[in-house]
Amino acid sequence: MNDSARFRKHDPAFRWEGVETRAYKNDPGVPYRDVTRQVLFDDPALRCELRYFEVAPGGYTTLERHEHVHAVVIQRGRGRVLVGDAIANVMPFDLVRVPPRTWHQFRADEDACLGFLCLVNHERDRPELPDAAALAALRETAEIAAFIRTE
Amino acid sequence: MNDSARFRKHDPAFRWEGVETRAYKNDPGVPYRDVTRQVLFDDPALRCELRYFEVAPGGYTTLERHEHVHAVVIQRGRGRVLVGDAIANVMPFDLVRVPPRTWHQFRADEDACLGFLCLVNHERDRPELPDAAALAALRETAEIAAFIRTE
Repeated sequence: MNDSARFRKHDPAFRWEGVETRAYKNDPGVPYRDVTRQVLFDDPALRCELRYFEVAPGGYTTLERHEHVHAVVIQRGRGRVLVGDAIANVMPFDLVRVPPRTWHQFRADEDACLGFLCLVNHERDRPELPDAAALAALRETAEIAAFIRTE
Repeated sequence: MNDSARFRKHDPAFRWEGVETRAYKNDPGVPYRDVTRQVLFDDPALRCELRYFEVAPGGYTTLERHEHVHAVVIQRGRGRVLVGDAIANVMPFDLVRVPPRTWHQFRADEDACLGFLCLVNHERDRPELPDAAALAALRETAEIAAFIRTE
């Protein structure tokens, strides 16, 4: 991406000119389903990155946690989000904040995609996946047990 | 704003629960018309702020420049934006990047508002207004002379 562009048009399919649509993760074996990633702004001067993720109907992001914070603005579609011990329905322009070291997962509804902007620090730690003990703890709550996807 | 909230619902009027709608600027005498500001995320750990600005129909932001960068995602309505020597029509989800020390102004169309997310560094320099010489230089281009609003 050429950071020097002043204007980038958006198209109805939620692609931006000059912005590459990438795989959600590059790590093999990390569980997720049907997610794409576009990096909209990654200016060293900002020290943050603004990414657009889109989860296809029925898809989900990786259940994970990390030290860095996520600041999210929903842009498109419909879905549900787990943050810590809470699950919320989300729609365009709702905000989601993922605090440090908090388990989280974004799921699109079965009949709608879920597109969102996610702001993170440019320098950030790697996500941690839940081990068996963490999964067991999450599954103590029936609603969370039914929500999470780990394959 | 309470940064600890994990979910904030958005309403059709583009207000977010728990987020105060503020004046665009607190400095008296700075020229702008009909602009509101909501700070959506201002987490010290992010070192950035994500704000939502809304310019009412016919309104405009201040013509200014500064060292810090703006990374903008249009969210609502329609308008035109000056960045340096270029003016572009913008619509929802278009991106605008304002490089350092570049004159810029956002104008809503006469019959539509213009709402946009603007990402900035938490620590940033104060904007500079154009002096007579800078205005004269901007006005050498007829299109820019017709666009800018300075009262």
